[in-house]
Amino acid sequence: MEDPLAEHIGAVPLIDHHVHGYWTHTGPRRTFENGLNEANTEPLATFDSGFDTQLGFAVRAHCAPLLGLPAHADADSYWAARSMVSDDALARRFLGAAGVTDWLVDTGFGEGISDLPAMANAGGGRVHEVVRLEALAEDAAAQPGDYAAAFEAVLADRGARAVATKSILAYRGGLRGDLSEPSQRDVREAAQRWRAAGGRRLTDRVLLRFGLHQALRLNKPLQFHIGFGDRDCDLDAANPLHLSSFLREAGDTPIMLLHCYPFEREAGYLAQAFNHVYLDGGLAINHLGARSSAFIARLLEMAPFRKILYSSDGFGPPELHYLGAMLWRRGIHSVLDTFVRSEEWGLAEAIRVVDLTAYQNARRVYRLE
Amino acid sequence: MEDPLAEHIGAVPLIDHHVHGYWTHTGPRRTFENGLNEANTEPLATFDSGFDTQLGFAVRAHCAPLLGLPAHADADSYWAARSMVSDDALARRFLGAAGVTDWLVDTGFGEGISDLPAMANAGGGRVHEVVRLEALAEDAAAQPGDYAAAFEAVLADRGARAVATKSILAYRGGLRGDLSEPSQRDVREAAQRWRAAGGRRLTDRVLLRFGLHQALRLNKPLQFHIGFGDRDCDLDAANPLHLSSFLREAGDTPIMLLHCYPFEREAGYLAQAFNHVYLDGGLAINHLGARSSAFIARLLEMAPFRKILYSSDGFGPPELHYLGAMLWRRGIHSVLDTFVRSEEWGLAEAIRVVDLTAYQNARRVYRLE
Amino acid sequence: MEDPLAEHIGAVPLIDHHVHGYWTHTGPRRTFENGLNEANTEPLATFDSGFDTQLGFAVRAHCAPLLGLPAHADADSYWAARSMVSDDALARRFLGAAGVTDWLVDTGFGEGISDLPAMANAGGGRVHEVVRLEALAEDAAAQPGDYAAAFEAVLADRGARAVATKSILAYRGGLRGDLSEPSQRDVREAAQRWRAAGGRRLTDRVLLRFGLHQALRLNKPLQFHIGFGDRDCDLDAANPLHLSSFLREAGDTPIMLLHCYPFEREAGYLAQAFNHVYLDGGLAINHLGARSSAFIARLLEMAPFRKILYSSDGFGPPELHYLGAMLWRRGIHSVLDTFVRSEEWGLAEAIRVVDLTAYQNARRVYRLE
Repeated sequence: MEDPLAEHIGAVPLIDHHVHGYWTHTGPRRTFENGLNEANTEPLATFDSGFDTQLGFAVRAHCAPLLGLPAHADADSYWAARSMVSDDALARRFLGAAGVTDWLVDTGFGEGISDLPAMANAGGGRVHEVVRLEALAEDAAAQPGDYAAAFEAVLADRGARAVATKSILAYRGGLRGDLSEPSQRDVREAAQRWRAAGGRRLTDRVLLRFGLHQALRLNKPLQFHIGFGDRDCDLDAANPLHLSSFLREAGDTPIMLLHCYPFEREAGYLAQAFNHVYLDGGLAINHLGARSSAFIARLLEMAPFRKILYSSDGFGPPELHYLGAMLWRRGIHSVLDTFVRSEEWGLAEAIRVVDLTAYQNARRVYRLE
Repeated sequence: MEDPLAEHIGAVPLIDHHVHGYWTHTGPRRTFENGLNEANTEPLATFDSGFDTQLGFAVRAHCAPLLGLPAHADADSYWAARSMVSDDALARRFLGAAGVTDWLVDTGFGEGISDLPAMANAGGGRVHEVVRLEALAEDAAAQPGDYAAAFEAVLADRGARAVATKSILAYRGGLRGDLSEPSQRDVREAAQRWRAAGGRRLTDRVLLRFGLHQALRLNKPLQFHIGFGDRDCDLDAANPLHLSSFLREAGDTPIMLLHCYPFEREAGYLAQAFNHVYLDGGLAINHLGARSSAFIARLLEMAPFRKILYSSDGFGPPELHYLGAMLWRRGIHSVLDTFVRSEEWGLAEAIRVVDLTAYQNARRVYRLE
Repeated sequence: MEDPLAEHIGAVPLIDHHVHGYWTHTGPRRTFENGLNEANTEPLATFDSGFDTQLGFAVRAHCAPLLGLPAHADADSYWAARSMVSDDALARRFLGAAGVTDWLVDTGFGEGISDLPAMANAGGGRVHEVVRLEALAEDAAAQPGDYAAAFEAVLADRGARAVATKSILAYRGGLRGDLSEPSQRDVREAAQRWRAAGGRRLTDRVLLRFGLHQALRLNKPLQFHIGFGDRDCDLDAANPLHLSSFLREAGDTPIMLLHCYPFEREAGYLAQAFNHVYLDGGLAINHLGARSSAFIARLLEMAPFRKILYSSDGFGPPELHYLGAMLWRRGIHSVLDTFVRSEEWGLAEAIRVVDLTAYQNARRVYRLE
């Protein structure tokens, strides 16, 4: 039986517009299982297992065959087979199978994580850097002299080589409240206080706001962590509707709403309401496993189709860099196939939306060639 | 193969309990495409197209055949074919095909829009007026003498001929906060301030609250814009749960929660919690296109079946007056067919819920006939 | 055709970890119909019927056969057949058919409701008590002497025989705001004020917070009403995300998030984020009827599978104690069957998740046997 939609989706090249490095050294099994839980910042309880989650089931369904195991291999078999393969080989195997041509890598977080050349080598595609604003701020705080000038210099330098900036404001007090540009004087005083306190882990609102508005001036896409993440972020403070006022004054700089669960419908509304707002479902797709197709369907509600992108948000186990792509391909096929069979969409339109989301929108927004 | 449920739904007459006029003069293509985007108040970005959305796809799937085109005609073909037909003929073709017996028309907004006689003529049904409270307030402000007396007189006059009132409080500061009845003195002082400032576009909370409580006294259904709309309305301020206190003191006057996306589950809860609360999914159904059946399913969760109504909220392109009906018929068939096939519902019950939602509930609440 | 998943789900024994008594004396039909509406605290409007809801349809689909009627019997037939059966026989028939081995009964609410021995007799399983913190507080207020000491004594006494505590903070001002432990002095002063005012229906935040922290010390699971319920509870104040700070400081005591609609995705996130957080979908499943499978699917998103439990929250009509089980069995089959057919899950894993949710998680958390 031919299924031209499935064939197209299976082969379409992806731009993974928000991803992190993979572990260069796998730790013990318990660390791996913790890596399958995003939200919990503590070690998993002894009665629990990272394998007994939608993500854990998806890993064994879709990654096991790449280790020579049958689909749905049990947790012990999976861990045993995985332990026989070197970290380098795991990375090449999983990243290489994702069908990704461009990796946009957030370099602002994580130790024991692959750098850009290693990503390119393992993944077989081009790599581009996404710089994290809060990390730039911490660099600027460590420099002598005027903080604002130091931040601008660091941003100009790092930003020139990067394709985008990223904000984790959601983890630094949340998206609620005033996000207008602070005065120079307020910035100066806030920087003094922060430096006096050690200048580590930026949570000062004035300086966070300053960084956002500097990033807007760079005129490269600005990515925001939205919704689901680890519990350092209060989920209700990561609702993208808190950004409404900021979006009104953000000019033309593209604003990328990342992940978005469980606020994907709110994010889709913002993507319809503002010419410069985009969204994706990275991270959430992996953690939703068998339920990711229902989530992908909701991403395709209010958001115009030229505003939706693909990402894995893979971090840690290289399985995640592959699984994001695999689940997205399976999910969008399931959703669009339903649209086409019910005659709500034509086949040609479905294929066009696949291409827009897989790579065309990202190529346009990030000006990749 | 016979499908008695599909036959019944295809033929059931509708009462469109919240709708606007259609464009009497179509503008250029770009204006039409903007008309397919509800949330954005600016011209669409040059890289974007109103045709590349769920609504745009639905227009080409379901409206194209009424223009003699195949379903899923491309955007250029659709626009070319549409441009060959006069505005009058477009209105007759689309409104006439909706299968609507009664149009309840919100007359409070829009220029270049058909009036009630034109709606009746094009749509082939009866028309009834819904008067917008904020427009009545602006009329009252323009009159000499006591504001409260002027408002009451305008409301008595216009309300006597109308079947319902409508509030766009969501667009005038949002639904959050105190909605109790203000004192006469507070009303007098607020009216003075507003008139002194020019008396245009009412955003004064005291006078907005005054209007709501006067509308309750009229004892005709009071419609509220809820949820999804254009970005003048902050979406989180349009959550119907903000109305909880107001609903507790609203007496018996029917309160109609319109549109509701993405708060349709919250609205359904309110419809179960309060004898006088109703809901619909107008506007959202059109913009959800292929995803509207999933939304219609959620409308059928907590809300009692005698509290759910149909509307298109059509405004501008007459396609929307037709498409609302078409997507509702397709969506409710898809949902109820699933219920019946899984033996959760009997066929007779499904048909009864179709009739309740299509016209019986509206006929009872608005006392039509 | 064999369907091993359906066979397993049909036979799996359930632990109903949150349930109430059934009516020992059925009132008139209107009272019964009101009993099919959870949210409305007033008598249903005369135009309305409790039978014309998802719950009413589900009762007639699934409970009618236990009364000797065909599925989907109409409301009059259902009421007539039900009226021919004694209350005791109704209870035995419905509770006995639920396939429940253990009933964890919240004894803090309701008159004309069966006690624990009657539940055991009708249901054919073991019964265990869940004590309500607010009821314990009201007992303590009625005693002479120091309030804190009286509460601790009552909790020690009642809690020793109970398997869990329950908080209805959602109904006593909501989950928002500070939930830290109050000082002894604040407790003493608040208790004085409350006793002076009569000591009934506790709504004092200091004493509610005191009760929660005492319950944590008991080191038995603490259940919270979350989300959907009657309108005494503002729905937005029952969002489990308001508990985030409390959960960070709640130690190891298991926290059970009950019902959760429409916040089941937020609750699932919390169950992933905190080792000691669990969730269920009781109450909501009954009221969602034909839509409960979609809800059950969302319960299976972010929550680890060792953190999801079954409950009916049955209260009043004994139909609800049976229907909760019936709809859960039908719903989880529908969801997991989809996962297995699409090859996202293996069959053995699906069966394992059924067992975890049906009884294994409850047995472990409540230390039953």
